[in-house]
Amino acid sequence: MTKKLVLESARVATLNGDAEPYGMIPDGAIAIEDARIAWAGARSALPDRFADWPHEDLGGRLVTPGLIDAHTHVVFGGDRAVEFEMRLNGASYEEIARAGGGILSTVNATRAATEDELLAGALPRVDALLAEGVSCIEVKSGYGLDQDTELRMLRAARRIAAERPVRVRTSFLGAHAVPPDYKGKADTYIDEVCIPALRAAHAQGLVDAVDGFCEGIAFDPPQIARVFDVARQLGLPVKLHAEQLSNLGGAKLAASYGALSADHIEYLDEDGVRAMADAGTVAVILPGAFYTLRETQVPPIDLLRRHGVPMALATDCNPGSSPLTSLLLTMNMACTLFRMTPAEALAGVTRNAARALGLTDTGTIAPGLRADLAVWDVEHPAELSYRIGFNPLHTRIFGGIE
Amino acid sequence: MTKKLVLESARVATLNGDAEPYGMIPDGAIAIEDARIAWAGARSALPDRFADWPHEDLGGRLVTPGLIDAHTHVVFGGDRAVEFEMRLNGASYEEIARAGGGILSTVNATRAATEDELLAGALPRVDALLAEGVSCIEVKSGYGLDQDTELRMLRAARRIAAERPVRVRTSFLGAHAVPPDYKGKADTYIDEVCIPALRAAHAQGLVDAVDGFCEGIAFDPPQIARVFDVARQLGLPVKLHAEQLSNLGGAKLAASYGALSADHIEYLDEDGVRAMADAGTVAVILPGAFYTLRETQVPPIDLLRRHGVPMALATDCNPGSSPLTSLLLTMNMACTLFRMTPAEALAGVTRNAARALGLTDTGTIAPGLRADLAVWDVEHPAELSYRIGFNPLHTRIFGGIE
Ligand SMILES: [Zn+2]
Ligand SMILES: [Zn+2]
Repeated sequence: MTKKLVLESARVATLNGDAEPYGMIPDGAIAIEDARIAWAGARSALPDRFADWPHEDLGGRLVTPGLIDAHTHVVFGGDRAVEFEMRLNGASYEEIARAGGGILSTVNATRAATEDELLAGALPRVDALLAEGVSCIEVKSGYGLDQDTELRMLRAARRIAAERPVRVRTSFLGAHAVPPDYKGKADTYIDEVCIPALRAAHAQGLVDAVDGFCEGIAFDPPQIARVFDVARQLGLPVKLHAEQLSNLGGAKLAASYGALSADHIEYLDEDGVRAMADAGTVAVILPGAFYTLRETQVPPIDLLRRHGVPMALATDCNPGSSPLTSLLLTMNMACTLFRMTPAEALAGVTRNAARALGLTDTGTIAPGLRADLAVWDVEHPAELSYRIGFNPLHTRIFGGIE
Repeated sequence: MTKKLVLESARVATLNGDAEPYGMIPDGAIAIEDARIAWAGARSALPDRFADWPHEDLGGRLVTPGLIDAHTHVVFGGDRAVEFEMRLNGASYEEIARAGGGILSTVNATRAATEDELLAGALPRVDALLAEGVSCIEVKSGYGLDQDTELRMLRAARRIAAERPVRVRTSFLGAHAVPPDYKGKADTYIDEVCIPALRAAHAQGLVDAVDGFCEGIAFDPPQIARVFDVARQLGLPVKLHAEQLSNLGGAKLAASYGALSADHIEYLDEDGVRAMADAGTVAVILPGAFYTLRETQVPPIDLLRRHGVPMALATDCNPGSSPLTSLLLTMNMACTLFRMTPAEALAGVTRNAARALGLTDTGTIAPGLRADLAVWDVEHPAELSYRIGFNPLHTRIFGGIE
């Protein structure tokens, strides 16, 4: 049987068009048929054919597209709380490394975990996101750095969508760090592990996009380019952790491959911004890592605005530099720390986040799109960014189902 | 009938003693009789007289004292989300003031609100705190700045404890700001409004402590001293918003009155730290306001440590400078922004927060104290500070009742 429902008496932030901030419809209605939006607009303009559908009165509540977290590492083994404490208790990086800390501790714990354990560890983090109206998350590999573990991470990521009502997009991030067994031999690692693992993961249908970490402590642009060349052969879109700690021209490289997104980009210059604008590459802004690492270099928000680069926002949820599982708090951080506007913040976790994942069927409220919605107990959409550590979600609707 | 219960197989962070960090008992038990803790210690040492009481197995979960938010302004009218948005959209302070923004907008909205409306507005904020294991909150007046509204705020605050399972301590904050009708006449305001309102509120049993805001934009030390003199006559303890934006010697003044706490104290010098140490005055650290206002002057944590001043942590929940309703996030901010340790952060929302409120029957886990407890799905107490925007609360126990 077809599911039919009209939501009415809602303030609808469609995130469509530029005439009104937020694409706001003050007294709106949304018709849902099965998993799709059949119609959205002013309640007074609701076509007659929806008149006898069941109606649900939302009492003036705000409706937004379901939120999208476009950059996460929610699948990993272990946690780093003790390392966090050691550092604050005054331990040196050497002492922490000797105690097995740093990204290596996550790699070791991830390699030691079964697929079921990886999934079980990720679910509480996913649940925290869903509780705030998230309907789609991106999940990266990158803590295996060997073929078996990279594929196991991606399988665990795919299974999240079977365990929870959420959509999952996977990114292969074999080029995340050079593992200890390849220390000083990053090129060999790319050839012997990263590229074969990517081909294997793709052959098993585990990869939606290919990611990398372009940085002095990770991989240089020519190494990233070799991975991206394989992605192109395989017909996979790319994205890149770029310009987080220095400017290596990673965003420009990514743009030259028509990348979906360049992420972090604190050190991006105008040349890189222009390249992204020309390629239609989304800027994924990650204030959680900036906050946790106490960085001072702010991403070039004004340049991105001026060149019309779409900005997305994401948690970067990971055990080291951003153990963050709140997209609402991410919005507040973007406003507070980076002076983004509340309207940019909301577009960043909806319309532009969808674009950063290459999705055209979600991220706004319009006929034909998926009925992934969030209903909020707030009067004004700016409240979503203004409050800190408060969750005003009333209802989450995923594929038309509450 | 007497309620009797033994919680066992718990990791118990008693927050007592200095032998173990967190006063940790790795395999502990807690006996609860009615609203009180009858016994706490190693499970192997549980006395025979508790053997036939009902036992509840906590499966190795962490138990801490119920959390205490020792500095909040959760009772107020209106909100400031639109002002937040205007500022980020580039409006000047003048434009915001003309649009009715700033603290004055909160004063106007609070004056216009009924007691029921003030209570109803506060409850969702209180609920957010309780959901993270909070069992006691302090609530201030200070958005009325006239006698009727100050008393109405305090009555609304007291009623929170009737509506929700939480303990409320009120602070009279008539000396919060100079209202527009007394512009340039702060002394007259103190004499004509603040002190009479304090006496009236005290006569009605609405005041547990007397607070003030000592700052260039508020009241100077002699004005605060006149309010504190009245508090002393009335037998009420004092506390002070001090050294937030500049060093006026507020903490030292407060210490000279034996203040329970001096709060904010970013600009506190060693002289003031020494005065607080001598008087046993608690330092209430408020990272939410520091974060929201993007301050750069960090409170003198090392000096406070060196002089043995107890440090509490609080949300400072208020609509202007800290719309924050998460004590766990406050702990993370204290660690991340102020380099406090996770052990200091947990003591700051339990043992030292109780002390900042003058409470001796809560804040640690020990026989005779109230059975206000929080049970957490974490392995190590550092996780409470490490994670960002994640709530691992399993159960809240308030006065012995889940
Ligand atoms: Zn990342
Ligand atoms: Zn305050």
